[in-house]
Amino acid sequence: MKLQLAFDFLQVPEIIRLVGQVADLIDLVEIGTPVIIRDGLEAVRRLKAAFPALTLVADLKIMDGGEYEATLAFEAGADYATVLALAHDATVAQAVKAARSYRAKIMADMLGVADIRGRAVGLEALGVDCVCVHTAIDVQQAGANPLRELRELKGALRRACTAVAGGIDARTIAEAAGERPDIVIVGGGITRQADPRAAALELRRRMKP
Amino acid sequence: MKLQLAFDFLQVPEIIRLVGQVADLIDLVEIGTPVIIRDGLEAVRRLKAAFPALTLVADLKIMDGGEYEATLAFEAGADYATVLALAHDATVAQAVKAARSYRAKIMADMLGVADIRGRAVGLEALGVDCVCVHTAIDVQQAGANPLRELRELKGALRRACTAVAGGIDARTIAEAAGERPDIVIVGGGITRQADPRAAALELRRRMKP
Repeated sequence: MKLQLAFDFLQVPEIIRLVGQVADLIDLVEIGTPVIIRDGLEAVRRLKAAFPALTLVADLKIMDGGEYEATLAFEAGADYATVLALAHDATVAQAVKAARSYRAKIMADMLGVADIRGRAVGLEALGVDCVCVHTAIDVQQAGANPLRELRELKGALRRACTAVAGGIDARTIAEAAGERPDIVIVGGGITRQADPRAAALELRRRMKP
Repeated sequence: MKLQLAFDFLQVPEIIRLVGQVADLIDLVEIGTPVIIRDGLEAVRRLKAAFPALTLVADLKIMDGGEYEATLAFEAGADYATVLALAHDATVAQAVKAARSYRAKIMADMLGVADIRGRAVGLEALGVDCVCVHTAIDVQQAGANPLRELRELKGALRRACTAVAGGIDARTIAEAAGERPDIVIVGGGITRQADPRAAALELRRRMKP
Protein backbone atom coordinates (compact mmCIF):
# COMPACT_ATOMS: atom_id res chain seq x y z
CA MET A 1 0.00 0.00 0.00
CA LYS A 2 1.41 3.36 -1.04
CA LEU A 3 1.11 6.74 0.64
CA GLN A 4 0.48 9.78 -1.58
CA LEU A 5 1.06 13.20 -0.06
CA ALA A 6 -1.16 15.92 -1.55
CA PHE A 7 -0.38 19.63 -1.45
CA ASP A 8 -3.28 22.02 -1.98
CA PHE A 9 -2.26 25.22 -0.20
CA LEU A 10 1.44 25.74 0.47
CA GLN A 11 3.80 27.80 -1.65
CA VAL A 12 6.28 25.81 -3.77
CA PRO A 13 9.36 26.50 -1.57
CA GLU A 14 7.38 25.25 1.46
CA ILE A 15 6.26 22.18 -0.50
CA ILE A 16 9.86 21.41 -1.43
CA ARG A 17 11.02 21.84 2.17
CA LEU A 18 8.24 19.62 3.51
CA VAL A 19 8.82 16.90 0.91
CA GLY A 20 12.47 16.95 1.93
CA GLN A 21 11.43 16.09 5.49
CA VAL A 22 9.28 13.07 4.56
CA ALA A 23 10.57 11.85 1.20
CA ASP A 24 11.58 8.44 2.59
CA LEU A 25 8.10 7.94 4.09
CA ILE A 26 5.95 8.68 1.05
CA ASP A 27 5.57 7.05 -2.35
CA LEU A 28 3.93 9.77 -4.45
CA VAL A 29 3.59 13.53 -4.20
CA GLU A 30 0.50 15.23 -5.60
CA ILE A 31 0.53 18.83 -6.74
CA GLY A 32 -3.07 19.74 -5.99
CA THR A 33 -5.49 21.56 -8.24
CA PRO A 34 -5.33 24.91 -6.38
CA VAL A 35 -1.52 24.94 -6.59
CA ILE A 36 -1.67 24.31 -10.35
CA ILE A 37 -4.33 27.02 -10.77
CA ARG A 38 -2.17 29.43 -8.78
CA ASP A 39 1.28 28.63 -10.18
CA GLY A 40 0.68 26.59 -13.31
CA LEU A 41 2.73 23.52 -14.15
CA GLU A 42 5.86 25.39 -13.12
CA ALA A 43 5.08 23.95 -9.66
CA VAL A 44 5.43 20.42 -11.09
CA ARG A 45 8.59 21.39 -12.95
CA ARG A 46 10.22 22.74 -9.78
CA LEU A 47 9.27 19.70 -7.69
CA LYS A 48 10.65 17.36 -10.35
CA ALA A 49 13.88 19.36 -10.50
CA ALA A 50 14.23 19.23 -6.70
CA PHE A 51 13.35 15.50 -6.44
CA PRO A 52 14.03 13.80 -9.78
CA ALA A 53 13.31 10.31 -8.38
CA LEU A 54 9.94 11.33 -6.95
CA THR A 55 6.70 10.03 -8.46
CA LEU A 56 4.65 13.16 -9.16
CA VAL A 57 0.89 13.39 -9.61
CA ALA A 58 -0.46 16.52 -11.33
CA ASP A 59 -4.06 16.89 -10.15
CA LEU A 60 -5.43 18.59 -13.27
CA LYS A 61 -8.95 17.09 -12.97
CA ILE A 62 -9.14 17.10 -16.77
CA MET A 63 -12.68 17.54 -18.12
CA ASP A 64 -11.95 18.39 -21.78
CA GLY A 65 -8.98 18.58 -24.12
CA GLY A 66 -7.69 15.30 -22.69
CA GLU A 67 -4.64 14.80 -24.86
CA TYR A 68 -3.52 18.42 -24.84
CA GLU A 69 -3.87 19.00 -21.10
CA ALA A 70 -2.34 15.67 -20.09
CA THR A 71 0.58 16.33 -22.44
CA LEU A 72 1.20 19.68 -20.72
CA ALA A 73 1.48 17.81 -17.40
CA PHE A 74 3.77 15.07 -18.72
CA GLU A 75 6.00 17.61 -20.49
CA ALA A 76 6.38 19.33 -17.10
CA GLY A 77 7.56 16.07 -15.54
CA ALA A 78 4.41 14.60 -14.02
CA ASP A 79 4.26 10.80 -13.79
CA TYR A 80 0.48 10.82 -13.35
CA ALA A 81 -2.17 13.27 -14.52
CA THR A 82 -5.71 13.12 -13.18
CA VAL A 83 -8.91 13.22 -15.21
CA LEU A 84 -12.41 13.61 -13.81
CA ALA A 85 -14.27 10.32 -14.06
CA LEU A 86 -17.26 12.47 -15.11
CA ALA A 87 -15.42 13.55 -18.27
CA HIS A 88 -16.63 12.23 -21.60
CA ASP A 89 -15.17 8.87 -22.66
CA ALA A 90 -13.47 10.62 -25.59
CA THR A 91 -11.65 12.95 -23.18
CA VAL A 92 -10.52 10.06 -20.96
CA ALA A 93 -9.34 8.11 -24.01
CA GLN A 94 -7.37 11.12 -25.29
CA ALA A 95 -5.69 11.58 -21.91
CA VAL A 96 -4.78 7.87 -21.84
CA LYS A 97 -3.33 8.23 -25.34
CA ALA A 98 -1.06 11.04 -24.11
CA ALA A 99 0.00 8.95 -21.11
CA ARG A 100 1.01 6.04 -23.35
CA SER A 101 3.18 8.38 -25.44
CA TYR A 102 5.05 9.55 -22.34
CA ARG A 103 5.14 6.20 -20.49
CA ALA A 104 3.11 8.02 -17.87
CA LYS A 105 -0.20 7.21 -16.18
CA ILE A 106 -3.74 8.48 -15.81
CA MET A 107 -5.59 8.49 -12.52
CA ALA A 108 -9.35 9.06 -12.69
CA ASP A 109 -10.99 10.97 -9.84
CA MET A 110 -14.51 9.69 -9.05
CA LEU A 111 -15.69 13.05 -7.62
CA GLY A 112 -19.42 13.33 -8.22
CA VAL A 113 -19.88 9.87 -9.75
CA ALA A 114 -23.09 8.17 -8.61
CA ASP A 115 -22.59 4.76 -10.24
CA ILE A 116 -19.13 3.83 -8.93
CA ARG A 117 -19.19 0.28 -10.23
CA GLY A 118 -20.40 1.10 -13.73
CA ARG A 119 -18.05 4.02 -14.25
CA ALA A 120 -15.06 2.10 -12.83
CA VAL A 121 -15.62 -0.68 -15.37
CA GLY A 122 -15.85 1.91 -18.15
CA LEU A 123 -12.72 3.75 -17.05
CA GLU A 124 -10.73 0.50 -16.93
CA ALA A 125 -11.89 -0.34 -20.44
CA LEU A 126 -10.64 3.09 -21.57
CA GLY A 127 -7.17 2.23 -20.23
CA VAL A 128 -7.13 4.31 -17.05
CA ASP A 129 -4.29 3.16 -14.77
CA CYS A 130 -5.74 4.05 -11.40
CA VAL A 131 -9.13 5.09 -10.03
CA CYS A 132 -9.56 7.25 -6.95
CA VAL A 133 -12.66 7.55 -4.78
CA HIS A 134 -12.67 11.02 -3.32
CA THR A 135 -14.77 12.91 -0.81
CA ALA A 136 -14.75 16.57 -1.89
CA ILE A 137 -13.36 19.12 0.57
CA ASP A 138 -16.64 21.01 0.28
CA VAL A 139 -18.68 18.01 1.44
CA GLN A 140 -16.36 16.54 4.11
CA GLN A 141 -18.20 18.56 6.77
CA ALA A 142 -21.35 16.68 5.80
CA GLY A 143 -19.74 13.49 7.13
CA ALA A 144 -19.46 11.74 3.77
CA ASN A 145 -17.33 8.61 3.87
CA PRO A 146 -15.51 7.16 0.87
CA LEU A 147 -15.02 3.66 2.28
CA ARG A 148 -18.25 2.22 0.94
CA GLU A 149 -17.27 3.65 -2.45
CA LEU A 150 -13.82 2.09 -2.11
CA ARG A 151 -15.37 -1.34 -1.52
CA GLU A 152 -17.52 -0.92 -4.64
CA LEU A 153 -14.49 0.21 -6.62
CA LYS A 154 -12.40 -2.77 -5.55
CA GLY A 155 -15.22 -5.09 -6.53
CA ALA A 156 -15.43 -3.54 -10.00
CA LEU A 157 -11.78 -3.21 -11.07
CA ARG A 158 -9.71 -6.09 -12.43
CA ARG A 159 -6.44 -4.40 -13.35
CA ALA A 160 -6.41 -0.69 -12.47
CA CYS A 161 -5.09 0.36 -9.10
CA THR A 162 -7.35 1.88 -6.44
CA ALA A 163 -6.85 5.04 -4.42
CA VAL A 164 -8.82 6.81 -1.70
CA ALA A 165 -8.74 10.51 -0.82
CA GLY A 166 -10.63 13.07 1.21
CA GLY A 167 -9.78 14.23 4.70
CA ILE A 168 -7.82 11.11 5.69
CA ASP A 169 -5.72 11.64 8.83
CA ALA A 170 -4.31 9.71 11.80
CA ARG A 171 -7.82 9.22 13.17
CA THR A 172 -9.23 7.62 10.03
CA ILE A 173 -6.32 6.05 8.13
CA ALA A 174 -6.49 2.61 9.77
CA GLU A 175 -10.10 2.20 8.64
CA ALA A 176 -9.22 3.34 5.09
CA ALA A 177 -6.15 1.09 4.97
CA GLY A 178 -8.28 -1.80 6.21
CA GLU A 179 -10.03 -1.77 2.84
CA ARG A 180 -6.66 -2.42 1.15
CA PRO A 181 -6.54 0.33 -1.48
CA ASP A 182 -3.33 0.48 -3.51
CA ILE A 183 -2.83 4.16 -2.63
CA VAL A 184 -3.96 6.20 0.38
CA ILE A 185 -3.90 9.96 -0.28
CA VAL A 186 -3.25 12.29 2.66
CA GLY A 187 -3.05 16.09 2.58
CA GLY A 188 -3.62 18.13 5.73
CA GLY A 189 -3.09 14.97 7.82
CA ILE A 190 0.61 15.60 7.16
CA THR A 191 0.97 19.13 5.79
CA ARG A 192 -1.07 20.85 8.52
CA GLN A 193 0.54 19.01 11.44
CA ALA A 194 3.02 20.69 13.77
CA ASP A 195 5.54 17.91 13.05
CA PRO A 196 4.88 16.61 9.53
CA ARG A 197 7.54 13.88 9.77
CA ALA A 198 6.12 12.54 13.02
CA ALA A 199 2.65 12.63 11.44
CA ALA A 200 3.87 10.71 8.38
CA LEU A 201 5.57 8.11 10.58
CA GLU A 202 2.40 7.65 12.62
CA LEU A 203 0.29 7.35 9.44
CA ARG A 204 2.67 4.71 8.10
CA ARG A 205 2.42 2.80 11.37
CA ARG A 206 -1.38 2.89 11.31
CA MET A 207 -1.52 1.80 7.64
CA LYS A 208 -0.04 -1.59 8.58
CA PRO A 209 -2.53 -4.40 8.97
CA MET B 1 -25.71 39.75 -27.23
CA LYS B 2 -22.08 39.69 -26.10
CA LEU B 3 -19.07 38.10 -27.75
CA GLN B 4 -16.58 36.28 -25.51
CA LEU B 5 -13.17 35.47 -26.97
CA ALA B 6 -11.59 32.33 -25.49
CA PHE B 7 -7.88 31.55 -25.52
CA ASP B 8 -6.85 27.94 -25.02
CA PHE B 9 -3.48 27.64 -26.72
CA LEU B 10 -1.51 30.82 -27.34
CA GLN B 11 1.27 32.15 -25.15
CA VAL B 12 0.41 35.18 -23.00
CA PRO B 13 2.29 37.76 -25.13
CA GLU B 14 0.42 36.48 -28.21
CA ILE B 15 -2.88 36.66 -26.32
CA ILE B 16 -2.17 40.26 -25.32
CA ARG B 17 -1.25 41.17 -28.89
CA LEU B 18 -4.36 39.53 -30.33
CA VAL B 19 -6.69 41.12 -27.74
CA GLY B 20 -5.17 44.48 -28.69
CA GLN B 21 -6.29 43.89 -32.28
CA VAL B 22 -9.92 43.10 -31.43
CA ALA B 23 -10.61 44.75 -28.05
CA ASP B 24 -13.31 47.04 -29.47
CA LEU B 25 -15.12 44.07 -31.05
CA ILE B 26 -15.36 41.75 -28.04
CA ASP B 27 -17.07 42.02 -24.65
CA LEU B 28 -15.28 39.41 -22.56
CA VAL B 29 -11.95 37.60 -22.78
CA GLU B 30 -11.64 34.07 -21.42
CA ILE B 31 -8.36 32.66 -20.23
CA GLY B 32 -8.94 28.99 -21.04
CA THR B 33 -8.27 26.02 -18.81
CA PRO B 34 -5.10 24.86 -20.64
CA VAL B 35 -3.57 28.34 -20.35
CA ILE B 36 -4.27 28.40 -16.60
CA ILE B 37 -2.85 24.89 -16.20
CA ARG B 38 0.26 25.93 -18.11
CA ASP B 39 0.88 29.40 -16.66
CA GLY B 40 -1.31 29.61 -13.57
CA LEU B 41 -3.32 32.71 -12.72
CA GLU B 42 -0.33 34.85 -13.67
CA ALA B 43 -1.90 34.75 -17.16
CA VAL B 44 -5.02 36.47 -15.77
CA ARG B 45 -2.92 38.95 -13.83
CA ARG B 46 -0.97 39.93 -16.96
CA LEU B 47 -4.10 40.31 -19.10
CA LYS B 48 -5.74 42.47 -16.45
CA ALA B 49 -2.62 44.65 -16.22
CA ALA B 50 -2.53 45.06 -20.00
CA PHE B 51 -6.30 45.73 -20.32
CA PRO B 52 -7.66 47.00 -16.98
CA ALA B 53 -11.11 47.74 -18.44
CA LEU B 54 -11.48 44.27 -19.93
CA THR B 55 -14.00 41.79 -18.50
CA LEU B 56 -11.97 38.66 -17.81
CA VAL B 57 -13.25 35.10 -17.43
CA ALA B 58 -10.95 32.59 -15.69
CA ASP B 59 -12.01 29.16 -16.93
CA LEU B 60 -11.05 27.20 -13.82
CA LYS B 61 -13.81 24.56 -14.21
CA ILE B 62 -13.97 24.35 -10.41
CA MET B 63 -14.99 20.90 -9.13
CA ASP B 64 -14.00 21.19 -5.44
CA GLY B 65 -12.70 23.81 -3.04
CA GLY B 66 -15.17 26.32 -4.49
CA GLU B 67 -14.46 29.29 -2.26
CA TYR B 68 -10.70 28.85 -2.21
CA GLU B 69 -10.23 28.36 -5.95
CA ALA B 70 -12.66 31.11 -6.98
CA THR B 71 -10.93 33.49 -4.57
CA LEU B 72 -7.58 32.75 -6.23
CA ALA B 73 -9.11 33.80 -9.56
CA PHE B 74 -10.73 36.97 -8.24
CA GLU B 75 -7.55 37.98 -6.40
CA ALA B 76 -5.75 37.69 -9.75
CA GLY B 77 -8.25 40.10 -11.34
CA ALA B 78 -10.82 37.80 -12.93
CA ASP B 79 -14.36 39.17 -13.22
CA TYR B 80 -15.83 35.71 -13.72
CA ALA B 81 -14.66 32.28 -12.58
CA THR B 82 -16.19 29.11 -13.98
CA VAL B 83 -17.41 26.10 -12.03
CA LEU B 84 -18.42 22.77 -13.48
CA ALA B 85 -22.17 22.35 -13.30
CA LEU B 86 -21.40 18.74 -12.30
CA ALA B 87 -19.74 19.95 -9.09
CA HIS B 88 -21.51 19.34 -5.79
CA ASP B 89 -24.04 22.00 -4.75
CA ALA B 90 -21.81 22.82 -1.77
CA THR B 91 -18.90 23.61 -4.11
CA VAL B 92 -21.06 25.82 -6.35
CA ALA B 93 -22.44 27.64 -3.29
CA GLN B 94 -18.92 28.23 -1.93
CA ALA B 95 -17.77 29.63 -5.29
CA VAL B 96 -20.80 31.95 -5.39
CA LYS B 97 -19.96 33.09 -1.86
CA ALA B 98 -16.46 34.06 -3.00
CA ALA B 99 -17.91 35.91 -6.00
CA ARG B 100 -20.23 37.96 -3.78
CA SER B 101 -17.24 39.02 -1.61
CA TYR B 102 -15.38 40.26 -4.67
CA ARG B 103 -18.37 41.73 -6.58
CA ALA B 104 -17.44 39.17 -9.20
CA LYS B 105 -19.46 36.48 -10.96
CA ILE B 106 -19.72 32.73 -11.37
CA MET B 107 -20.37 31.07 -14.71
CA ALA B 108 -21.34 27.39 -14.61
CA ASP B 109 -20.19 25.15 -17.46
CA MET B 110 -22.74 22.45 -18.33
CA LEU B 111 -20.11 20.05 -19.76
CA GLY B 112 -21.33 16.51 -19.22
CA VAL B 113 -24.71 17.43 -17.72
CA ALA B 114 -27.54 15.17 -18.97
CA ASP B 115 -30.50 16.96 -17.36
CA ILE B 116 -29.95 20.52 -18.62
CA ARG B 117 -33.26 21.87 -17.38
CA GLY B 118 -33.07 20.39 -13.88
CA ARG B 119 -29.46 21.40 -13.27
CA ALA B 120 -30.02 24.91 -14.66
CA VAL B 121 -32.82 25.48 -12.17
CA GLY B 122 -30.60 24.19 -9.35
CA LEU B 123 -27.66 26.35 -10.37
CA GLU B 124 -29.82 29.46 -10.50
CA ALA B 125 -31.14 28.70 -7.01
CA LEU B 126 -27.51 28.46 -5.83
CA GLY B 127 -26.88 32.00 -7.10
CA VAL B 128 -24.90 31.26 -10.26
CA ASP B 129 -24.80 34.35 -12.50
CA CYS B 130 -24.48 32.70 -15.88
CA VAL B 131 -24.85 29.20 -17.31
CA CYS B 132 -22.97 27.99 -20.38
CA VAL B 133 -23.89 25.05 -22.60
CA HIS B 134 -20.68 23.67 -24.00
CA THR B 135 -19.75 21.02 -26.53
CA ALA B 136 -16.40 19.59 -25.40
CA ILE B 137 -13.46 19.86 -27.81
CA ASP B 138 -13.04 16.10 -27.56
CA VAL B 139 -16.58 15.44 -28.79
CA GLN B 140 -16.94 18.17 -31.44
CA GLN B 141 -15.77 15.73 -34.08
CA ALA B 142 -18.77 13.56 -33.21
CA GLY B 143 -21.04 16.30 -34.57
CA ALA B 144 -22.58 17.25 -31.22
CA ASN B 145 -24.60 20.45 -31.31
CA PRO B 146 -25.27 22.65 -28.29
CA LEU B 147 -28.27 24.52 -29.75
CA ARG B 148 -30.88 22.10 -28.49
CA GLU B 149 -29.26 22.40 -25.05
CA LEU B 150 -29.31 26.20 -25.35
CA ARG B 151 -33.05 26.14 -26.01
CA GLU B 152 -33.59 23.94 -22.94
CA LEU B 153 -31.40 26.27 -20.89
CA LYS B 154 -33.27 29.38 -21.94
CA GLY B 155 -36.53 27.69 -21.05
CA ALA B 156 -35.27 26.85 -17.56
CA LEU B 157 -33.53 30.06 -16.42
CA ARG B 158 -35.39 33.09 -15.07
CA ARG B 159 -32.56 35.40 -14.06
CA ALA B 160 -29.12 33.96 -14.87
CA CYS B 161 -27.57 34.81 -18.21
CA THR B 162 -27.02 32.18 -20.89
CA ALA B 163 -23.88 31.38 -22.87
CA VAL B 164 -22.98 28.92 -25.59
CA ALA B 165 -19.55 27.51 -26.43
CA GLY B 166 -17.93 24.80 -28.47
CA GLY B 167 -16.46 25.16 -31.92
CA ILE B 168 -18.51 28.21 -32.91
CA ASP B 169 -17.14 29.96 -36.01
CA ALA B 170 -18.29 32.06 -38.98
CA ARG B 171 -20.09 29.05 -40.44
CA THR B 172 -22.19 28.35 -37.33
CA ILE B 173 -22.51 31.62 -35.41
CA ALA B 174 -25.70 32.86 -37.10
CA GLU B 175 -27.54 29.71 -36.03
CA ALA B 176 -26.22 30.01 -32.45
CA ALA B 177 -27.05 33.72 -32.29
CA GLY B 178 -30.53 32.94 -33.62
CA GLU B 179 -31.25 31.26 -30.27
CA ARG B 180 -30.55 34.62 -28.53
CA PRO B 181 -28.03 33.58 -25.87
CA ASP B 182 -26.64 36.44 -23.76
CA ILE B 183 -23.05 35.45 -24.58
CA VAL B 184 -21.57 33.63 -27.59
CA ILE B 185 -18.13 32.19 -26.88
CA VAL B 186 -15.68 31.89 -29.77
CA GLY B 187 -12.11 30.60 -29.65
CA GLY B 188 -10.41 29.29 -32.78
CA GLY B 189 -13.05 31.06 -34.90
CA ILE B 190 -11.01 34.19 -34.17
CA THR B 191 -7.66 33.09 -32.73
CA ARG B 192 -6.84 30.59 -35.48
CA GLN B 193 -7.84 32.82 -38.40
CA ALA B 194 -5.26 34.45 -40.65
CA ASP B 195 -6.82 37.86 -39.92
CA PRO B 196 -8.35 37.74 -36.43
CA ARG B 197 -9.77 41.27 -36.66
CA ALA B 198 -11.52 40.55 -39.96
CA ALA B 199 -12.84 37.31 -38.44
CA ALA B 200 -14.18 39.14 -35.38
CA LEU B 201 -15.84 41.77 -37.59
CA GLU B 202 -17.47 39.05 -39.69
CA LEU B 203 -18.66 37.19 -36.57
CA ARG B 204 -20.17 40.42 -35.21
CA ARG B 205 -21.95 40.98 -38.50
CA ARG B 206 -23.38 37.45 -38.53
CA MET B 207 -24.52 37.72 -34.87
CA LYS B 208 -27.01 40.43 -35.84
CA PRO B 209 -30.59 39.26 -36.30
